[in-house]
Amino acid sequence: MAARRPILLLTMGDPAGVGPEIVARSLASPSLRRLARLVAVGDPEVLDRAARRARLKLREPVDPDRFDPDDASSGVPVIASSHDGWSSVDPGAPTVASGRAAARAIEVAAGLALAGRADGIVTAPISKVALRAAGYPHPGHTEFLGALAGVPETKMLFVGGAFRILLATVHLALRDVPDALAVDPLTRTLEFAAAALRNFGWGPKRAVAVLGLNPHAGEEGLFGDEEQRVIRPAIAAARAKGIAAEGPYPADTFFAQHLGRRDLGVVVAMYHDQGLIAAKRDGIGGAANVTLGLPFVRSSVDHGTAFDRAWKGGAKRPDPAGLATAVRVGADLANRAGRRRLEWTWP
Amino acid sequence: MAARRPILLLTMGDPAGVGPEIVARSLASPSLRRLARLVAVGDPEVLDRAARRARLKLREPVDPDRFDPDDASSGVPVIASSHDGWSSVDPGAPTVASGRAAARAIEVAAGLALAGRADGIVTAPISKVALRAAGYPHPGHTEFLGALAGVPETKMLFVGGAFRILLATVHLALRDVPDALAVDPLTRTLEFAAAALRNFGWGPKRAVAVLGLNPHAGEEGLFGDEEQRVIRPAIAAARAKGIAAEGPYPADTFFAQHLGRRDLGVVVAMYHDQGLIAAKRDGIGGAANVTLGLPFVRSSVDHGTAFDRAWKGGAKRPDPAGLATAVRVGADLANRAGRRRLEWTWP
Repeated sequence: MAARRPILLLTMGDPAGVGPEIVARSLASPSLRRLARLVAVGDPEVLDRAARRARLKLREPVDPDRFDPDDASSGVPVIASSHDGWSSVDPGAPTVASGRAAARAIEVAAGLALAGRADGIVTAPISKVALRAAGYPHPGHTEFLGALAGVPETKMLFVGGAFRILLATVHLALRDVPDALAVDPLTRTLEFAAAALRNFGWGPKRAVAVLGLNPHAGEEGLFGDEEQRVIRPAIAAARAKGIAAEGPYPADTFFAQHLGRRDLGVVVAMYHDQGLIAAKRDGIGGAANVTLGLPFVRSSVDHGTAFDRAWKGGAKRPDPAGLATAVRVGADLANRAGRRRLEWTWP
Repeated sequence: MAARRPILLLTMGDPAGVGPEIVARSLASPSLRRLARLVAVGDPEVLDRAARRARLKLREPVDPDRFDPDDASSGVPVIASSHDGWSSVDPGAPTVASGRAAARAIEVAAGLALAGRADGIVTAPISKVALRAAGYPHPGHTEFLGALAGVPETKMLFVGGAFRILLATVHLALRDVPDALAVDPLTRTLEFAAAALRNFGWGPKRAVAVLGLNPHAGEEGLFGDEEQRVIRPAIAAARAKGIAAEGPYPADTFFAQHLGRRDLGVVVAMYHDQGLIAAKRDGIGGAANVTLGLPFVRSSVDHGTAFDRAWKGGAKRPDPAGLATAVRVGADLANRAGRRRLEWTWP
């Protein structure tokens, strides 16, 4: 029997940004709908407006507790997470109302995924400013979803390009990165990498390659000592737990030298730009941001709300390529996870 | 009248490393020899050994003061910078003798270029360890050549890939990068970028795009304040001098978003890996390291001595692609500079 297609919930993102439009354009793609059963989550009036622009047929919206994944009616299912309507949206401008509506879509989608009624969620961009104005303290989706799921720690993995790249630290001033690296948390990061290899069937014995922090990975302590003091001990600790951790590698030459290496599982970058310059070098939309640490699959676009292009149409019509990548990656991960809840401890 | 082909001196690098072999294999390439009049500089016995492996015909070696660029004999000219011979080389092992021979080739080549008897030099890799053992305090070619030329400051520019990338800081621990950035030196770096645009005929009015230091270029001060405190004032100071400086840009998305932009001159990266992850992402040998601040052209491979592959032959035979890129870039820059001494002040 062929595997049942996974259920993926697409949250609309901030309604004043490009989210609803790129969600509708992705839902209108037959090739994406073959990969998974896609469901829109958001304000029905906002989603309807975006759907009409994308010539997409939506079903009648249902409340979250009425969602039936086995309903076989035509059109794309819609779960109503809020009902403020189009009149509450100021296109291109983040507001308290737009932040609240974006947050409600995330809460509803996470609730369904946590209850096992969906396999994963794919998120359109939100505005940190609007979220904060609406009283949500989280700097982004990753932390917000971690809080909703009640998990102690989440990690950002970029998937879909030539490498899977996991970040050891994320939104920190570069000045604060060296002191944020310590043996125990970095060892935990390597365990997350190994757990991802197991959860997603990428091969738990594949290599977890760790980049250095300093130029030339410190060149034997000539420029910085974090490789010796922190990174090598964390690699050794992970190896003692059966993880094929290796490195630290000089970050500048790593990607060219390891391209196409079949036994490579995950690359661990020490800081945001070290990982993301490599992940985004081939073009935006080349990789999706995947959250590790949640019991369900979550993928996301790697771009922002693009308020300057929202609801403008014409040449400004937003490109759904990033969200399409996130849907493809999310569907692939949900299939690979095989309906199991994801486990992030390492034995 | 067609322009005279420029004269480029190829220094052999550390004789215990791959330098002599990749120099000989590059000199054996008819397509590279069409670009410039190529001359080998090093120990004649070492170069002869490498030339025989590459089936390359060398001329009789001459002493530096006897070098005649207009000699029309067949074969590739050789300038003897030392005479320790093959017996002084321990293949794969950096020694006092190998460091001294590598240093002598650089001194001789720089002397000829400073005297106007060559248009540029292309350097094969040297060993920092061997150089130091031989009593030379310089951490690398860039600083060594700066001292020989008596110039107060040199900069590293990577040329040959999709972007020209200039580094504001180079071989520093990541921890020391934020405090190494200051308004005046960074403004000087932007002036170097503009002077490169003028010296090499790339268009002095093209943009000098400056990357941020922090993730998302600090996101309005949310992660780090160097963008506001240092980078924006340096951009403003450069603009006041007539330089089309712009930024700071988030480093992770910059390269995908600005690929193929025709009015882009130079990208200024704040630290080593920020620039070099992007420069090397397309493969090693994709870009050459060019020194700014010298009165002559200097380009270099972007890899090291690879002692584990030196003089082994067979499958270990070193790949000359990186040096070939350096020769192509060096010849192009020498042609563009049009025999003029390079000037690094900005009016």
